[in-house]
Amino acid sequence: MIAAARNRGIALLRHPARAVALAFGAATLLGTFLLTLPVASASGSATDPFTALFTAVSAVCVTGLVVVDTAGHWSTFGEVVILGLIQVGGFGIMTLASLLILLVSRRIGLRLQMTAQAETKSLGLGEVRRVLLGVIITSLAVEAVIAAFLTAGFAAGHDYSFGRAVYHGIYHSVSAFNNAGFALYSDSMIGFATDPLICVPMMIATIIGGLGFPVLLELARRRKRRGKRWSLHTKITIPVYFGLLLFGALAFLVFEWRNPTTLGPVGTLDKILIGFFHSVQPRTAGFNSIDMAQVQPSTLLLNDVLMFIGGGSAGTAGGIKVTTFALLGWVMLAEIRAEPTVHIMGRKLAGEVQRQALTVALLGVGAVMAGTIVLLSISPFRLDDVLFEATSAFATVGMSTGITAQLPVAGQAVLVVLMFMGRLGPITLASALALRERARRYELPEERPIVG
Amino acid sequence: MIAAARNRGIALLRHPARAVALAFGAATLLGTFLLTLPVASASGSATDPFTALFTAVSAVCVTGLVVVDTAGHWSTFGEVVILGLIQVGGFGIMTLASLLILLVSRRIGLRLQMTAQAETKSLGLGEVRRVLLGVIITSLAVEAVIAAFLTAGFAAGHDYSFGRAVYHGIYHSVSAFNNAGFALYSDSMIGFATDPLICVPMMIATIIGGLGFPVLLELARRRKRRGKRWSLHTKITIPVYFGLLLFGALAFLVFEWRNPTTLGPVGTLDKILIGFFHSVQPRTAGFNSIDMAQVQPSTLLLNDVLMFIGGGSAGTAGGIKVTTFALLGWVMLAEIRAEPTVHIMGRKLAGEVQRQALTVALLGVGAVMAGTIVLLSISPFRLDDVLFEATSAFATVGMSTGITAQLPVAGQAVLVVLMFMGRLGPITLASALALRERARRYELPEERPIVG
Ligand SMILES: [K+]
Ligand SMILES: [K+]
Repeated sequence: MIAAARNRGIALLRHPARAVALAFGAATLLGTFLLTLPVASASGSATDPFTALFTAVSAVCVTGLVVVDTAGHWSTFGEVVILGLIQVGGFGIMTLASLLILLVSRRIGLRLQMTAQAETKSLGLGEVRRVLLGVIITSLAVEAVIAAFLTAGFAAGHDYSFGRAVYHGIYHSVSAFNNAGFALYSDSMIGFATDPLICVPMMIATIIGGLGFPVLLELARRRKRRGKRWSLHTKITIPVYFGLLLFGALAFLVFEWRNPTTLGPVGTLDKILIGFFHSVQPRTAGFNSIDMAQVQPSTLLLNDVLMFIGGGSAGTAGGIKVTTFALLGWVMLAEIRAEPTVHIMGRKLAGEVQRQALTVALLGVGAVMAGTIVLLSISPFRLDDVLFEATSAFATVGMSTGITAQLPVAGQAVLVVLMFMGRLGPITLASALALRERARRYELPEERPIVG
Repeated sequence: MIAAARNRGIALLRHPARAVALAFGAATLLGTFLLTLPVASASGSATDPFTALFTAVSAVCVTGLVVVDTAGHWSTFGEVVILGLIQVGGFGIMTLASLLILLVSRRIGLRLQMTAQAETKSLGLGEVRRVLLGVIITSLAVEAVIAAFLTAGFAAGHDYSFGRAVYHGIYHSVSAFNNAGFALYSDSMIGFATDPLICVPMMIATIIGGLGFPVLLELARRRKRRGKRWSLHTKITIPVYFGLLLFGALAFLVFEWRNPTTLGPVGTLDKILIGFFHSVQPRTAGFNSIDMAQVQPSTLLLNDVLMFIGGGSAGTAGGIKVTTFALLGWVMLAEIRAEPTVHIMGRKLAGEVQRQALTVALLGVGAVMAGTIVLLSISPFRLDDVLFEATSAFATVGMSTGITAQLPVAGQAVLVVLMFMGRLGPITLASALALRERARRYELPEERPIVG
């Protein structure tokens, strides 16, 4: 019995795409059921199944788009169900992504760091347990520390009762670490826009979750064994993640500095706090401390680009991931420089990885474009809002200019599909691409069509 | 003397990017000068230099964006200068692109078809002359036939005097064949939307010019020597070009069928004519027979995608070209199917070509995105209009929702840059990429960062 269960578990891991989809589907169904219960709504009446489904998908996929106001519509029970779904979604994606990476890669040194086992294409249960434990312990530890800071911030600066401060502290810590973007306020974090005691811990939680488990693990191990080389994955992820953060903040500040409906009225230090808060959010937590319906069109488009790129691999962030983005840049650079191989920081990039990055990025562009065109054709909204909404769903960001609830049900269903694709697509696609056997084929004569 | 001139000519061809930029720069300067002359404007007063420059760039780059109404602002002399610039731009891009392709490729069979000369990296003057003659004869022949049909259409259906019918016939034939999109009517071809005698010849001219000289040449040679294999370039270009045409027409009809400000009021056959006319235009002639300010946002975005893809290589069309687009699709498909090499219609795709296609496409996305963000930040317009405008400029299409003239001068300068980049970028980039020597480098250890 136990052996059979073990075999089944390991067999599932041999079909990672299936396992991931199954786990997320099951969590979504359970969440939908719980959210339809009358006890889950503030009014005490049952919630319609589609609203419950949308909310469950948004929570499990740690997106944060909502068709009903989280604070207003749900009871505390409903809010806790959502938080549970976020946590399960966060655990799930981090664990599964890390396992998939273990399976497919000798590359980031993760496997060697975590186990002495020889390189095979299956994982022992011990390995699975170790990754799961690592993810859970890391998550809970970070969440606890951030929750403590937030609790202090809510209690000290906003006259919350201790119980309420603890509840809000935990809620927003978990939501931020898992890059979920669900807030207990109808206006997200606008009420705390100028409070660094709330904004800064949430930004830190978002960044730690968004860098991804492999990077966190390497940073943690690094402290113990000095002198070891950093993996290329970490060496790319960290500068690109923080580089985009800085770029995003500067561009946000430039575009919004004088906008009377956003940064215009607040002081310089507050402007900078909001600028950095809003640069962290597209990678891909999705809180907002100013109203996104009021920003410049240029800010929205810049946010589209940043959201699409997203955060680190195998973390709680969405998007095509900063490594995918950076690798494409390096490939382009190598091409322009006429270098036959792509060299990154003293390492050669494997040829298949280039094609994988291209495939992940192009399928992402295709999904967002198709979703946007469908949404445009069935709703009265303009491209600014709709592209932002579709990108936000695909990159599991959850920011919105406020059109989510006004979309027709078919449009909300498009968002559900985009959220699932965006959450599960890149990682399962990339690992499926990397896992399968490469068939040797007969060779055909080579030919070069004209490009450009 | 003659030998020196020859050597200089051939030396220029060894630096194709420089030669192309030089030729286009010179034509633009001459055109700008002529258009500033009082005799070039209908009012008889001098035109300001920036307006003249914008118009000259738009004409030489066969784009068709205008800041002043072509029919209203310019005298007949001015209109003829513009037509001359269009023709020079069309000859120029077809000749240079064909020569560049001769230089870089044994691939499309063009070289072998045109000359028995051994494969070297330089061209003889005889070869250059032959290409130039081929381009000129092909262009003039097609333009003459189409002009005859248009003249008949104008004379028969619209009560034009014979002289006026000839002038308009030639003008719109040249403008259509060169995918330029300049029309002698303030509302482009809206007045002729339901006249197949005008629309169909213009569509045919656009398609012939937009397929590209290598494809035309192969189609022409084909008739003489039967049994020869088609080149991969032609086998990709033709189905993708016409596939996009059909797809574009169907999508346009679906999105606009009931739109009361566009297709709604006209009959079914007229709807279909307008649908196909508006599917030809994004590839990349840029006339319009309905007002683009009135179409659905979904139609605009779909047009953005189609314009960005553009037409055939080494023709009068712009965009990243249908081959670049199709190759990326095949690379993706091969990756998903786990095939180590990319096979297309019984041929293997060279590895460098994949990277070239990726580079051309990504630089295109980068140029359009950067241009759009700058335009958004300095103008009051929304994303729908601005993305359409930037894509239209980059892909040298020339359709507009009408914001061109209302943009600040800095914004119009951005369009000038986009037009130049879009016209010269992909072809010179692709050939520069393909021409240079590939340096052999020392090998570094391979590593595979996580993608997705
Ligand atoms: K999120
Ligand atoms: K054009």
